[in-house]
Amino acid sequence: MIKVSIIGSGNVAQHLINTFKSLSNSGNEIELVQAYSRRKESLSNLLPLENITDDFNTLKEADLYIISVSDDAIAAVSDALPFKNRLVVHTSGSMPFSILNDNNRKGVFYPLQTFTKGKAVDFTSIPLCLESENGTDYKLLEKVAKAISNKVFAINSDQRKALHVAAVFVNNFTNHLYSIGNEICQENQIPFEILKPLMEETLNKLNNLSPIEAQTGPAIRNDQKTIAAHEAFLKKENQLNIYKTLTQSIQENGKKL
Amino acid sequence: MIKVSIIGSGNVAQHLINTFKSLSNSGNEIELVQAYSRRKESLSNLLPLENITDDFNTLKEADLYIISVSDDAIAAVSDALPFKNRLVVHTSGSMPFSILNDNNRKGVFYPLQTFTKGKAVDFTSIPLCLESENGTDYKLLEKVAKAISNKVFAINSDQRKALHVAAVFVNNFTNHLYSIGNEICQENQIPFEILKPLMEETLNKLNNLSPIEAQTGPAIRNDQKTIAAHEAFLKKENQLNIYKTLTQSIQENGKKL
Repeated sequence: MIKVSIIGSGNVAQHLINTFKSLSNSGNEIELVQAYSRRKESLSNLLPLENITDDFNTLKEADLYIISVSDDAIAAVSDALPFKNRLVVHTSGSMPFSILNDNNRKGVFYPLQTFTKGKAVDFTSIPLCLESENGTDYKLLEKVAKAISNKVFAINSDQRKALHVAAVFVNNFTNHLYSIGNEICQENQIPFEILKPLMEETLNKLNNLSPIEAQTGPAIRNDQKTIAAHEAFLKKENQLNIYKTLTQSIQENGKKL
Repeated sequence: MIKVSIIGSGNVAQHLINTFKSLSNSGNEIELVQAYSRRKESLSNLLPLENITDDFNTLKEADLYIISVSDDAIAAVSDALPFKNRLVVHTSGSMPFSILNDNNRKGVFYPLQTFTKGKAVDFTSIPLCLESENGTDYKLLEKVAKAISNKVFAINSDQRKALHVAAVFVNNFTNHLYSIGNEICQENQIPFEILKPLMEETLNKLNNLSPIEAQTGPAIRNDQKTIAAHEAFLKKENQLNIYKTLTQSIQENGKKL
């Protein structure tokens, strides 16, 4: 039996607790022994109170402690752990494992996904990016990760940093482009729904083509007339800036990428 | 029986020919009577040669002529049609119907989707944006459109222009962000596949949230430390420009959109 303890009560922590809880119930060899939260009530809808602690000194022994708190709090939380030489990992995409306290063996258990509070997630298809200081710990992390996901990757700190930047482009920035599409629709009394099949196909194309092969539109075909018409249409400075910056990038780099 | 003629042999034209052909075969009340191409051979894999013409003077009588050629060629093609007072539409997202020759009744039949040569499309879920000069023509266009799609919208020329700009943001620009994500992965020996569940969830979230509600990431939470680290990581000028431009837009407009 591998005993897992989750430290934190935020979005990712709660999704992990739910997932490990159902693993424990299904008689898997992974057991969620406890969760820590500064405020027990914030987890009381997920676990019986006796399985929640708000005191680091009452943390039960476990094979793996997963710290899932905001980036800024990881170091302080790992400093506060009152034990030594156990396996302690964090779930952050942007932090190296070196921010964890040297008292314990370090690692990373980073689920590469965007989590929405209250929206159930299926961890099976969420990539888990693992890193550890030694091979034995990696094997344990891998066993735990494979119990909840089909997509488990060894990703070192440099790669994870790159991945986090890439994730900002394909998630945060893409979502902002969706926002602008939505805004343009609203201003012109067009239902945003009308754009969704296009957004889906933009993504589905990548099952058969690389994004560079899939690139279409006025920028890549250097259609200056359409570009000029679009730029004249856009009255908001931020939209125009984005249009120009992305058009230029597609034209200069689209084919070279 | 509604007789349809398709003029053009490009990507959209070929997809329309395939779709109307299967309608004709299924005993629907829509009949594809003919297609025009400058080079008959370019359509000979889709239609029997006797149903293809390369001469406008041998165009058969039809209730609807759909001109599906590049934007720059629409006016010239419509000028070349040797008949009068028939319903002639184009399939362009960026052109008003006024570019069509006055000899005939004008309209637009714009499928809002990105088409890939050789990749079959299911028109059922492709939004069709219709416009015409009068109600009778609109009814006919609507009947034809509803025979191939569940998503039929009345969209006037101003709206279509806005929609085309919005489509550039959510399709062309989003795809370029995917390219950059792919590029960052390649440079760091990370499989691009690892980002796909995130890209899918970014889109799926919009089934429950507006894009403005779904916005996450360092820009919207004003996490200057992470933003600075990402900017230091990005060595390519175009990537850095895009990062800065989109971060600024999210920070200034994200909540107001």
